[in-house]
Amino acid sequence: MKHFISVNDAGDITQLVLEALMVKKYPFADKELGKNKTLGLIFLNPSLRTRLSTQCAAQNLGMDVIVMNLDKEGWSIETKEGAVMDGSSAEHIKEASAVIGQYCDIIGVRSFPKLLNREEDYSDDVLNKFIQYAGVPVISLESATLHPFQSLADLITINEVWNNRKPETVIRKPKVVLTWAPHPKILPQAVPNSFSEWMLKADVDFVITHPEGYELNEKFTKEAKIIYNQDEALKNADFVYAKNWSSYKEYGKIISQDKNWMITSKKMSFTNNAKFMHCLPVRRNVVVADEVLDGSASIVLQQAKNRIYSAQVVLKKILERYDPH
Amino acid sequence: MKHFISVNDAGDITQLVLEALMVKKYPFADKELGKNKTLGLIFLNPSLRTRLSTQCAAQNLGMDVIVMNLDKEGWSIETKEGAVMDGSSAEHIKEASAVIGQYCDIIGVRSFPKLLNREEDYSDDVLNKFIQYAGVPVISLESATLHPFQSLADLITINEVWNNRKPETVIRKPKVVLTWAPHPKILPQAVPNSFSEWMLKADVDFVITHPEGYELNEKFTKEAKIIYNQDEALKNADFVYAKNWSSYKEYGKIISQDKNWMITSKKMSFTNNAKFMHCLPVRRNVVVADEVLDGSASIVLQQAKNRIYSAQVVLKKILERYDPH
Amino acid sequence: MKHFISVNDAGDITQLVLEALMVKKYPFADKELGKNKTLGLIFLNPSLRTRLSTQCAAQNLGMDVIVMNLDKEGWSIETKEGAVMDGSSAEHIKEASAVIGQYCDIIGVRSFPKLLNREEDYSDDVLNKFIQYAGVPVISLESATLHPFQSLADLITINEVWNNRKPETVIRKPKVVLTWAPHPKILPQAVPNSFSEWMLKADVDFVITHPEGYELNEKFTKEAKIIYNQDEALKNADFVYAKNWSSYKEYGKIISQDKNWMITSKKMSFTNNAKFMHCLPVRRNVVVADEVLDGSASIVLQQAKNRIYSAQVVLKKILERYDPH
Repeated sequence: MKHFISVNDAGDITQLVLEALMVKKYPFADKELGKNKTLGLIFLNPSLRTRLSTQCAAQNLGMDVIVMNLDKEGWSIETKEGAVMDGSSAEHIKEASAVIGQYCDIIGVRSFPKLLNREEDYSDDVLNKFIQYAGVPVISLESATLHPFQSLADLITINEVWNNRKPETVIRKPKVVLTWAPHPKILPQAVPNSFSEWMLKADVDFVITHPEGYELNEKFTKEAKIIYNQDEALKNADFVYAKNWSSYKEYGKIISQDKNWMITSKKMSFTNNAKFMHCLPVRRNVVVADEVLDGSASIVLQQAKNRIYSAQVVLKKILERYDPH
Repeated sequence: MKHFISVNDAGDITQLVLEALMVKKYPFADKELGKNKTLGLIFLNPSLRTRLSTQCAAQNLGMDVIVMNLDKEGWSIETKEGAVMDGSSAEHIKEASAVIGQYCDIIGVRSFPKLLNREEDYSDDVLNKFIQYAGVPVISLESATLHPFQSLADLITINEVWNNRKPETVIRKPKVVLTWAPHPKILPQAVPNSFSEWMLKADVDFVITHPEGYELNEKFTKEAKIIYNQDEALKNADFVYAKNWSSYKEYGKIISQDKNWMITSKKMSFTNNAKFMHCLPVRRNVVVADEVLDGSASIVLQQAKNRIYSAQVVLKKILERYDPH
Repeated sequence: MKHFISVNDAGDITQLVLEALMVKKYPFADKELGKNKTLGLIFLNPSLRTRLSTQCAAQNLGMDVIVMNLDKEGWSIETKEGAVMDGSSAEHIKEASAVIGQYCDIIGVRSFPKLLNREEDYSDDVLNKFIQYAGVPVISLESATLHPFQSLADLITINEVWNNRKPETVIRKPKVVLTWAPHPKILPQAVPNSFSEWMLKADVDFVITHPEGYELNEKFTKEAKIIYNQDEALKNADFVYAKNWSSYKEYGKIISQDKNWMITSKKMSFTNNAKFMHCLPVRRNVVVADEVLDGSASIVLQQAKNRIYSAQVVLKKILERYDPH
């Protein structure tokens, strides 16, 4: 593994999940692997889970970690090729990324979309410039379009839960439903895009449900089954993954705030006793009712915990296969 | 020791001070104790001494430290039970604290009062929610009502000074005077509340002096002697602890800015050659005159230094007695 | 070495560069030297290279590092002697620096000039107060007037390049030209001041070129040759160091934004196939044209990399010669 940007960098994801579970079992087994290696975490947007879990993961591997809020502790970064930099930006991303690459063995980058221009956002310019110029492995801490550490943690969690369930008479795949949910703000599509591309590679039956107009980029949803009726979609679900996103078609628009899409006990009653999943942070009683989030069906904390092992297994594989300097 | 929130969590404080002095003498003796343990320091308010001294303490114990300015690097946190989160808060404290508890073995939290609503502030909601939901030991980095690491450091300092003084003919307790002092801003009562509850358990004669109307919450001052005449109170003092606070009775109000309450050489001349104490940061020539702060009576830097050992002895005891995961 | 503030603290700079190159070759050879030692990095201004490279350097030496953005994470600091602190500043630099000195074995400080009052800026008040009150070694992370880690890294880089060039028939010193370049903002003189004082002690032919009115403080440029015609100055240069600065004479003024001073391929063609240097961040197509910065003559990343070893050799020497507590 060199970079970790999407499911395409993950190799055999079944194998990767198994390795992650080993990492979870013995988190300090590779404490020597990251010795004298530095992970730089570059944030252009706020973060809680990603910031903390990736630090934990790196420290478990014995790495030094340097955290930098480039937007707050540094200065404004220019990204346009050939720009005459006589405005507010003090440094070009070419230099910023190449310089950070001089100091770090692996770089993590968080860069959200602006949700104004679809083409610009979907070019994932900041992340790709880091890959192009940093000269060291780059891992995505959520880009404009994808959030691979989250999706890997989600898959680890589904695996744990599904393998620990009571034995059934029939061997079958779990049914996983990604459902859109209402939200007061304009949110990126990164989490649902990413979850979709991971689920399509995983050994699950995958269904997406959302109001019409919320279709995601087909590059990520491909052959996924889309059902516009949420109640219908939830039937017999084993896992319900709720998430809001803004429209991809009418880019960056909120085209529904329909409260009927909130996940409630009633909605969960349509499922096969499903587990409730969310990447967090979550708006209580908007995306999901307290009764569900505080109930035994919720596995959101297990997902959050698995963010450590999702990051750690990836860092481990990069450290093992790649001698960056 | 599980949590460290108030003097009530400290056990035998004489014993704790003795242990802290041993930690100060051999700061790296327990470098293995914190191995593979992570301390998360969560700041909702600015900090200098607490931030640095607690990091030092944890690193002396071999712990990994993750610092997070939740207010600046994260997002706004909802604390109300049952809230419909369609406003500006992106995450509920239930999830925030529980998630941080997935990544950290011990969590430190700083959360100041808003000084608008007494009942709300004195419920110490943020801190208590962390205790309720984090699932790991929580230590207070100054809450709305108390600042236990400061008070423990103060007690360590008083102990050091008192035990190192020239032998006197009569064995006696030191007289410790907590005096209100003027200040241009509205300040919390956490430091004086906390100092009071620690002094009342310590082997000292404790006196509080302040203008009328500045009475603290009796929960913390209990049987402490209150003298409204500062000059009278300072007589024969061995330690003068100056601090401003806003009114508890007329909650959050400044009811005096009387400059006569500033600690000057003249005021110190009423004492028994007392040492001057302050938790810092201090407003020079408002709370205390330069002549006192820069003079040999000032032990404020010794107090600051002891913040390391106050935090370290507590972390040590938590690590020793509690296996958090 | 106790403090590291200017070239005068560096001792024999030829020897220091040789030691830095050894540190670069074996960066982890002194991993035990910094054990149980803490480096505090105090930023009153933004930073990228300095923040990351100094952390790397310290971690290579086994030190613990604490980073504090005093301006953002702390509060406003008073610097005036005898101030009555009833305004916006919550802490005096006397206490702030002395307290940080209780927690750190070495302190790095970044404090830019305000560029309003020359005398005030050139007193380098913040840095000098830290030296006066911290009680531990202080290293400059760029002060109001000098940037010694940058200059040492620059000298290391010149050394590497000059010693690795193809053998010439005549043994000679390299010609190093510091050239002013246009910029939209009012910038400090710290980098050119510092580069000048280091070059004047180094074994090079040193020339400064700038529009009239941009003469630097003679304290730092001394006997340096100043040529007002840039084309003339660049003739036969082996190294071209571009940098903008605001006027020292008409203090803090921009007296030229003449685009003809930008470094282009044409300008470089006047030189002896010179290498292009800049401390970064750099304004592309304002200070230097893309064609130069992206071409093979540019050694700006090598300079950035050498910031690690510039900091590391200095920290090493301080740790070796000085037992701070």
